Order: sequence, then C-alpha cells, then structure tokens
Amino acid sequence: MLLGTQRVNEEGHLEIGGCDAVALAREFGTPLYVMDEALIRANCRAYKRAFAERYPNNEVSYAGKAFLCTAMCALLEEEGMCLDVASAGELHTALRAGFPPERLFLHGNNKSRLELEMAISAGVHRIIVDNEYELEMLIALAERAGRPVDVLFRITPGIDPHTHERIRTGQVDTKFGLEVQNGQAARVIERAVAHPFLRVRGTHFHVGSQLLDLEAHRQAIEIGVDLLAQFRDDIGYIAEEMNIGGGLGIRYLSHHEPPSISEYADMVIGTLKACLQAHNLPAPKLQQEPGRSIVGEAGTTLYTVGAVKEIPGVRTYVTVDGGLSDNPRPALYDARYEVLLANKANRPAERLVTVAGKHCETDTLFPDVTVPDPAPGDLLAVQSTGAYNYAMASNYNRFPHPAVVLVHDGQAEVIVERQTLDDLVSKDVLPRRFARPR
Amino acid sequence: MLLGTQRVNEEGHLEIGGCDAVALAREFGTPLYVMDEALIRANCRAYKRAFAERYPNNEVSYAGKAFLCTAMCALLEEEGMCLDVASAGELHTALRAGFPPERLFLHGNNKSRLELEMAISAGVHRIIVDNEYELEMLIALAERAGRPVDVLFRITPGIDPHTHERIRTGQVDTKFGLEVQNGQAARVIERAVAHPFLRVRGTHFHVGSQLLDLEAHRQAIEIGVDLLAQFRDDIGYIAEEMNIGGGLGIRYLSHHEPPSISEYADMVIGTLKACLQAHNLPAPKLQQEPGRSIVGEAGTTLYTVGAVKEIPGVRTYVTVDGGLSDNPRPALYDARYEVLLANKANRPAERLVTVAGKHCETDTLFPDVTVPDPAPGDLLAVQSTGAYNYAMASNYNRFPHPAVVLVHDGQAEVIVERQTLDDLVSKDVLPRRFARPR
Repeated sequence: MLLGTQRVNEEGHLEIGGCDAVALAREFGTPLYVMDEALIRANCRAYKRAFAERYPNNEVSYAGKAFLCTAMCALLEEEGMCLDVASAGELHTALRAGFPPERLFLHGNNKSRLELEMAISAGVHRIIVDNEYELEMLIALAERAGRPVDVLFRITPGIDPHTHERIRTGQVDTKFGLEVQNGQAARVIERAVAHPFLRVRGTHFHVGSQLLDLEAHRQAIEIGVDLLAQFRDDIGYIAEEMNIGGGLGIRYLSHHEPPSISEYADMVIGTLKACLQAHNLPAPKLQQEPGRSIVGEAGTTLYTVGAVKEIPGVRTYVTVDGGLSDNPRPALYDARYEVLLANKANRPAERLVTVAGKHCETDTLFPDVTVPDPAPGDLLAVQSTGAYNYAMASNYNRFPHPAVVLVHDGQAEVIVERQTLDDLVSKDVLPRRFARPR
Repeated sequence: MLLGTQRVNEEGHLEIGGCDAVALAREFGTPLYVMDEALIRANCRAYKRAFAERYPNNEVSYAGKAFLCTAMCALLEEEGMCLDVASAGELHTALRAGFPPERLFLHGNNKSRLELEMAISAGVHRIIVDNEYELEMLIALAERAGRPVDVLFRITPGIDPHTHERIRTGQVDTKFGLEVQNGQAARVIERAVAHPFLRVRGTHFHVGSQLLDLEAHRQAIEIGVDLLAQFRDDIGYIAEEMNIGGGLGIRYLSHHEPPSISEYADMVIGTLKACLQAHNLPAPKLQQEPGRSIVGEAGTTLYTVGAVKEIPGVRTYVTVDGGLSDNPRPALYDARYEVLLANKANRPAERLVTVAGKHCETDTLFPDVTVPDPAPGDLLAVQSTGAYNYAMASNYNRFPHPAVVLVHDGQAEVIVERQTLDDLVSKDVLPRRFARPR
C-alpha cells in the first residue's frame, strides 16, 4: 500500500514528496512526522471540485482537530478552504497564521467565555452553538460587544454509526448538541431567531468518525432534512445553511476501501436533493467538515528501530524510538496501521513482528505486522498517521514532541520544530525554598 | 473518600494542604492539578521507614514516570529518595533540579545512544540494562568514556499479574528484559561480569502496575530469588543487589483497599528472607521503585463545570473545561475515579451524572458518578490524579497543559506553569513562501 506521492526509489528506499525517507531521517532525526503536501492539496481540491460540480452553494471546512499548525492553516488558506477550530488554541493558531476569520467555524461542546470572546472579537464566520448555557453566554457577550453573531445550532440526529464508541457522536446519548425528540432544538432555535444579536444561519450535526460506509451519513442527511422541514412547519424557521459534519474514513490498512470523495459527494448530494424535494424545501447552503480524509493518508511517521527481541515460539518485538506519546491511537482506539521498512522498501516483508514503543509500559504500537528482516538502525515508516497523531501527542515520560516536515517536489520544510530537552522543563518552577548549592 | 490532607472546611469547600480548593481555582484557574506535599512526603517516609525497620540494606527509588518536574525532584532529594528516570527528558529534568546523579537509576526498554551517553557522563547510580543490543552500545560508550558503569539486568520473571494488559510487564510475552527460560539472562550476565567496563550489581524485574493484592509481587520475589540461586549455581555469579520494581496500587475508588505500605513491606521482606534462607544465599541490597503509590493519591484535579445537559430518561452530562488531554486514563485504561463538587463538598451527592470533557470526541471522563445538584460554575474535584495525569498530558485540540500547584500548610506554589496560547504555536514554523500581507 503506497499512498499519495509515496513510491519506492532506485535505492529501494521509501520516498515521499520526492524526498528519500532515509535522508529525511538523517537530516531531521526520528521520530519524525512527514506530511505529503501534494496529497493534502489534492484532497482539498477533490472535495471542493466534487461538491462544486454537484452543488455549487457549499463550503468545505477542514476540521482542525485532525492536524493543525500555522503552516497547515496557510496551506488551507491557499486552497480556498474554510477551517473548523474547536478551542482557543486552535483559533489562536489560525489567527496567528493569518487565516481569514471570515472562513472560520468555531466548535466545541463546552466553549469557554474566552473562546466565545475571541471568536466574536475576531469576527469568525460561524459559531456552532452546542447548548443553551452557551447560548446565554454568547448572547450576553454579543450584546456587550455590540456585534451580532452568525450561528448554527448543533443538533443530535439520533444516529448510531458503526465506528469506535469513542468517536461516535450522533446518537441520542451524547454530550453534544440540542435534543430533537423532546422539542429542545425547536424551542431554542425559535427563541434565537427572534434575538437581535443572533443571526441563525442553520443547523449542524456530526455522526461520527472514520466511517467506511455511507449508510450513517445517508441516514443523517435524511434526518437532518426532516428536521429542517419540522422547524419550518413547527416554528416557521427556514434554514439557510445545513452543516453535515465530517467523518469519511481513510485507508489505515490495505484492505480498507473507504468511499472515494466523489462517491461520497454523489451520495450526499443525491440524498440531499431528493430529501429537499420531498419536503418542498429551498436548497440551503451545504457545509461539511472533513478532517481525517484530508490529512490522514498524507502523514507518515518515521521511527528508528532499536532493540529487536526474539522470544522463541512467542513473538519478535521490534522496538522503536517513539511510542504512545507520538501515536496514542493504538492504545486509545485499538487502531491498526500498515508499516514498512523505509530503507528496505523493495524487500519482501516476510517476518511477522510486533512493534513496541519505548515508554515504560506495554506500549504496543503495531501488533502482528510483517516486515523484511528487521535490525537495529532500520527505519520504520508508519502510514496514514497524518490525523490525530501529532495532534494528540503527549510528553509522557518527558519525551519531546517530534518535528513535522512538509515535503513536496523533493523539498522538505520543517513546519513544527522538534521540542528540545530544555523545552520540557521550560514551564517547571523550582520554588526558592528548594534551591540549594551543589 | 478524603485522602491525605483533604478535608471539608467551614464553608463546605474541599480543602487540600490547608488551601481552599475554590480559592485555588480562582487564583490559578482551571483545569488545575493540585499536589498535596504532606502526603507525598508521608508516603516517601512510610516506604523508607517500613523497609529500614525490616531490612536496612535497601534503597527506595521513586519512579519518575508517574509525575516529574524539577520541584518534585527537589522534594524527593530532601526526603532522601533515589529516583528512576526512563528517558533523556526525565534525566535532564533531574539534573536540572540538581538531583544527585549518584541516586539516579536509568531505565528504558530501548535506550538511545544519547540517553546512555548522558547517563555515563552524569555518573548515574545504576543503569538497568534491558537487552543485548543496548549492552553492546553501553560497553562501547563506557570504553570510549573510560568509565566503568554500574548495571543491573532486567529479567522477565514470567509472572502474569491481575491488572490492565497495558500495564502488565512481567509475563514472558513482553518487550522488556532478558529471557530466563532459554538461558539468555545467564549468558548475558556471565559475559558482562567478565567485562572490565561493567560492574554487574544485580538483577531487576517489574511485574506490573496498580496491583491491589500482593500475590504477583510475592511470586515475583520467589522467582527472583530462585534466579539469583540459579545464576550462582550455573555461572558462579552472586548478585549484590536485587531490584523488585514497583506496582503497589492506590485508592482510585472508595471501595479499593490496596495493601498498606507496611503490609507490603511485611510481605516483601518476609518472602525475601525465607527465599534467601532456603537457597542459602547472602542477602543482597534490596531496591524498589514505587511511583503511583507515592504521588497518585496526592493529586487532585480541579475543573470548572460548564454546560449541564439533561437527556430525560437517558443520562445527565456534566461538562468540564478539560478532558482527555489532561487525563487520558479513562480512555486508555478504562480507569475510574471518585469525584466531588469542591464548592458543595458538604452536600449529599444525590445526582447520578456522567462527566464529559470538552474535546471534539466522546471524551467521557467519569461515567456514572454521583454529585450534589451540578450547575455551571461549580468546581469539580477529581481524586487520585497525581500519577499519570500531568505526566501523560497532551495538547489535543491545542489545549494548553494545565498548571500544577504544590500545596502545604495553607500555602500554594506553582511548580509547573500553565501553558499559554503562544506556547502552543511556539514550535510552529511558517515557511516564507506562505507569508503574505493581510
């Protein structure tokens, strides 16, 4: 399985964006996150094109939580994408990168006063209101700022998609959004529409992540349009915008066959148009929030192999110089990945091994994967690590965050510097009473 | 369940180290990690006293991975503890704090050349060698430095303790240590003993973490002494030191009843002496590595409650201003915690709720806990978060790491500053080609 611009070069090395992975590791060290610029741009364009052709009145907003840094914001800006931010930190990153606020969506199930203030002050495009408590706070802040705000309301469609329970968010039993069944959503929207400092643009829902079939999305769109009709009929509110969230899955394993972006667009637009027609509703602007499907396959993690431990009759452990701190997804979601040896990429992968990290716990990263005969010093490449790897990185065991390099056309640029050992103690404070000469 | 110096004060607020939790939250913000200095010191002293009374030839080494910052190192130094470090970052932290290198143990299943070089150069007390690859590297570096190094060898006792699989490390199928059954351990030790640049001090094992009964530890000590006898008989090597790792559990929930430190010491020393006598072995120095049982119960996380979402007939969600990024243990290990409302600590906890974080996924922190009637602005205190919370914190969703305050006798000192929004972009690099005037 080779993704994006990955190929095996004449030396038998993995190459990404025209850069030899072995050379990247030598220049930037390991662990290293490598992001394939051409693939990120191609994915942005595929979304924009697929929807522009089928339903021009739409906005594609990248879900920043998957992977965000200032360079990523700048790249998205060039591609004409909108951007979802879900915290003060993500919003700050976007603003620092010069990303246009009028293309920002602010998310979050428990936004702080600071986050709402920052969003109002920056003039973000849309604030997706999750709950009534937040709505009260937002109204007070908008009145004080003397600025009307544009909002969508997050609603829970009551869909239970087939994915890991921790990334399943559309069902009734969720912390997210306004409830439909008990009339909460209609009541809140009715009140908000009448408020002079709120411009209610429409509704938002998100059913879950890493969905490898289209069924949950299809159901959600059907229910989402039903709700628009219900709001029209019950409270006379006609939504101008409908945000269908994200969630399209990617290839983590070679046998994964996620729908293509154009298959996805066919389903979305086909379903949407049919439902709108059935309810005789005017066509709203369609908004969506792909994250993983923009960056996931564009990321490769490079590790240096250290000790190789063969336990006869049991297992061979291949240990690497990272672990849970740079990729918590195996531990959090039982996520599986494809791996290869970047310096032996043209040799047959004949050895069954388990890759373990170097943290002081089990730290199993990639169980039961096959590689060519592994040896200390080899370079292990892990595919599809572009989403929720750097974004979820910790400093467990005081490991520095790895660097991120963006590769394209044989060039590699650092877009996030590796943390240094001094960075790890930069926030530590030693109270004076502990200070002593040594 | 109140732990350490926790009590409910006259205002009905939770107090820790003589500090009102509501006042701490107001002064330092939330989420906030609060560490109870008196309890940390009491636990260090309990270990030292319990073992000094029963077996004076011993060293107690705190396992830094549980919670480490420069102030923690200084506190441990004052208490006469040794310290385990398991990475360049942990070692750097200890050295930066002025912790005496002659009381440091270096751990790790895949130590890097840099880590070994730093340890040799600093002159750490013991390097716990995990595998043959590391041993070769260590020998080369010691020879080059012209300095003999003091080592222990990590061996796998083949014990399968009752704990979460991710923190179970003593069984045969593990990335850690030298195998005993196939003769690897004896062969490696025999060779190392003869090497002029290695001083082989003894053996190390660790069976697992958060163990709530003594059985696995007892078995491990029996097997550990059997191995010492085997090494004596097979290769004529008599160990001077035996390191039994850590793993004693703590109270996360009120019904947890971990063995006390003195019960643990009774079992360890009773078993050790009996086994030594049975094998007619000289008594080695005993080393151990408690981490969680020193700091776990000494930590309390304070969160501010935001939106409270009641889903009639289903569940009430109480959302807080942190989540997976400051406490990944519920998601990683299905860990459960006791919680209370620090500003309503004297009211009966009558409402069954689920506490959720503010990350853009399910982010369930504390399912099915009881609290007094929760409202936005309440202060949620989570107990026993001293270990593997700050240590495992991530910047997921670009959340800043919370601050850590050390409380004692009514005083609160920041020992780790809260990250700022600017800290979050401090390693981001925006390549010049993306820069544009706005």
